[in-house]
Amino acid sequence: MSAESTVGSTDLPVKRQREDGENGVSMETEGVKEPDCISAVIPGWFSEISPMWPGEAHSLKVEKILFQGKSDYQDVMVFQSSTYGKVLVLDGVIQLTERDECAYQEMITHLPLCSIPNPKKVLVIGGGDGGVLREVSRHSSVEKIEICEIDKMVVDVSKQFFPDIAVGYEDPRVTLHIGDGVAFLKAVPEGTYDAVIVDSSDPIGPAQELFKKPFFESVAKALRPGGVMCTQAESIWLHMHIIEDILANSRQVFKGSVKYAWTTVPTYPSGVIGFMLCSTEGPEVDFKHPVNPIDAHDKSGRPLRFYNSEIHSAAFCLPSFAKKVIDYKAN
Amino acid sequence: MSAESTVGSTDLPVKRQREDGENGVSMETEGVKEPDCISAVIPGWFSEISPMWPGEAHSLKVEKILFQGKSDYQDVMVFQSSTYGKVLVLDGVIQLTERDECAYQEMITHLPLCSIPNPKKVLVIGGGDGGVLREVSRHSSVEKIEICEIDKMVVDVSKQFFPDIAVGYEDPRVTLHIGDGVAFLKAVPEGTYDAVIVDSSDPIGPAQELFKKPFFESVAKALRPGGVMCTQAESIWLHMHIIEDILANSRQVFKGSVKYAWTTVPTYPSGVIGFMLCSTEGPEVDFKHPVNPIDAHDKSGRPLRFYNSEIHSAAFCLPSFAKKVIDYKAN
Repeated sequence: MSAESTVGSTDLPVKRQREDGENGVSMETEGVKEPDCISAVIPGWFSEISPMWPGEAHSLKVEKILFQGKSDYQDVMVFQSSTYGKVLVLDGVIQLTERDECAYQEMITHLPLCSIPNPKKVLVIGGGDGGVLREVSRHSSVEKIEICEIDKMVVDVSKQFFPDIAVGYEDPRVTLHIGDGVAFLKAVPEGTYDAVIVDSSDPIGPAQELFKKPFFESVAKALRPGGVMCTQAESIWLHMHIIEDILANSRQVFKGSVKYAWTTVPTYPSGVIGFMLCSTEGPEVDFKHPVNPIDAHDKSGRPLRFYNSEIHSAAFCLPSFAKKVIDYKAN
Repeated sequence: MSAESTVGSTDLPVKRQREDGENGVSMETEGVKEPDCISAVIPGWFSEISPMWPGEAHSLKVEKILFQGKSDYQDVMVFQSSTYGKVLVLDGVIQLTERDECAYQEMITHLPLCSIPNPKKVLVIGGGDGGVLREVSRHSSVEKIEICEIDKMVVDVSKQFFPDIAVGYEDPRVTLHIGDGVAFLKAVPEGTYDAVIVDSSDPIGPAQELFKKPFFESVAKALRPGGVMCTQAESIWLHMHIIEDILANSRQVFKGSVKYAWTTVPTYPSGVIGFMLCSTEGPEVDFKHPVNPIDAHDKSGRPLRFYNSEIHSAAFCLPSFAKKVIDYKAN
C-alpha cells in the first residue's frame, strides 16, 4: 500500500466542487475547507457518524485531504489516512481504504463468479471505483464486462487516486456506462448475463432503489437461467431489519437459491459486511460449494489477498442470532 | 440486553479510586470526574485510542458513567452506552459490551471445549467478568471449574453491573482464586486439567506474561495428555507480528495441534479477535471438527447467541493474507 500523497502529481487538484453549471458540477480552486464530518469530531481525524449506526463512530487519523467534491449525487472525498492508506468517502461514509479493500472487492466478486462454471458476461452496477472490475478480470472465461455507475466523479477520482483499484478499467473486456443502473437494467435484453454484481453504497442516498423489489426483478430478467446476483447486504450486527427486507425481496423474485454470506472489513461499521447471493431458476447453484476455483485461471499477476475457496464456504456460516432469522427465511 | 442504569441500586457507588493504602486501593467518594478518554475526544463519547492500533479509534456514545476505579493493576470503568448496553473498560480498552460479548465469550469457550470429548476439569486464567464461566457451565460433563483472576475489582464490578455475565460465578462447580495466573499455574500438579482457557487483555499491562513461552510451558504441564489451551490471540488485521510470536511460542511448547481461529466482535479493534488453540501430546485433537457438540447437553436455559458447530469450523478458515503467515508456520 502506498502511503505517499498524490497531491501535486495529479490532474485533479485538491479542490472543492459544488453543483451549479451545465453538468451540475463546477470547481472552486481557492483551497480546501474542512468538511463538517472532520471538524466536528477529533481535530485531524475523520469520523464516520450516521443514523445507520447510531451511538458509535469509527475514526481514522487524517494525514492530508487529497480531494473534496460535490457531484450531482453525493459528496466525494479522498484523504490520506495515517495507517489505512488512502480512503474514499461518499456522503461521509467510508467506501474503501487501501488497507482493507481486498476483503470487500474479492468477496463480492468471487462469491458469485466462483459459484458458476465459465461465467462469460458480467454486469457490475455501481462499483465505480473499479475494484470489482479488477477482480472480475481474474476470470479468464469472462468475455464481456459491463459496468453501470451513476456518478462519473467516483470513476474519475478513483482513476486519479486509487490506481491499484481503478486498474480494473484497463481490461479491454470492460465497457463503462455512466448512468442510472435501474434504467440501464430495464433496457437489457432478457437472459443477457451470467452474473450481475451490485456494488452499491448504503440504502440511503443514491443507492436506495438498488435494494427494492422492482430492481431485483430487472436483475433476474437480465440473467440467464441459473445466472447469479450478488449484492452488498449490510451488517448482521447492525442491520438485521434491512437484511430481512432484502431477503424477502430476493425470495419473491429469485426462484433458484438465496443465500447470505458475510466477511470482515475493519473500516465498515461493526467490522463486517454481508452479501445476498441469488440465482434464477435453471441449473442449480450451490453457493456454499464453489465449482469454479479462481486460482487455476488467474493470469492477473496480482495474488489474491483475501479470497480462497475455504473462506468462500466459511462466509455462509452464520452466528446463531443471524442464522435464526436468515436461514429460517432463506431456506 | 438491559439498557437501564444500575446506579443507585448498587453496593458499589459511582466513585473514583486511586492507589494509596494498605492494599493499594482507596475510595474517593466526592463525585465522578470525566476520564481523559472521554473528555479528550468526542464530547460525551468514549473513544478507544491506543498504540496497539495507531491512527484509528472506535467511539461509543456515553449515556452515563456508572463506575470508575483504579485497582492495583489497572483503571476500571463501566459506562452505559447509548446503543451497546453497558460497557466494561480496562486501562482505556473495551473488554466487553452487553451487545456483542456473546461472540467472544462463546467462541473462546466452546472452540476448545467442543473439540474434546467429556471435558471434566477446566481452568480459566483471567476472565474475571465471569462470561467464560457462564459458557463453561453449559457443559454438563464438567465437574470442576477453577478461575484465577488477578484483579478482584474486575470480579466485583462485573457482579455489580453485569449480572447476566457474572452469572457464571453462581455455578457451584466454580472456585475463584484471586491472584497471579502465572504463579497459580506453577503450583498446579502435572496433568490436572482437560482444558485451560486464557481470557486475557492485550499483551501490554497486567496480561503481558500470559503471551510468553514460560507461561505456555506451565499451561502445557498443567494439562492432561491431549488436553487443550485456548488463548486470546489478537487481530489478523492489526497484530500479525504478535500472532506470529504467539504461534512460535505455541509450536515450541505444544506437541499436539496448534491452530488459529477468529471471529467477529464489533467493539474490538478492527472488528475481529483471534484465538490460538493448542493441544498437548496425546490423543489427537482436530480443532476444526468439533467432537463434542454443545446443544445436546446444555441445560442452562440460555440459548447460545453466537456459537454453533458450523461457525466453529468456519472460524479456522483464514483470509489468504493471514493463511500465508499462520498456516505455513502452524502446520
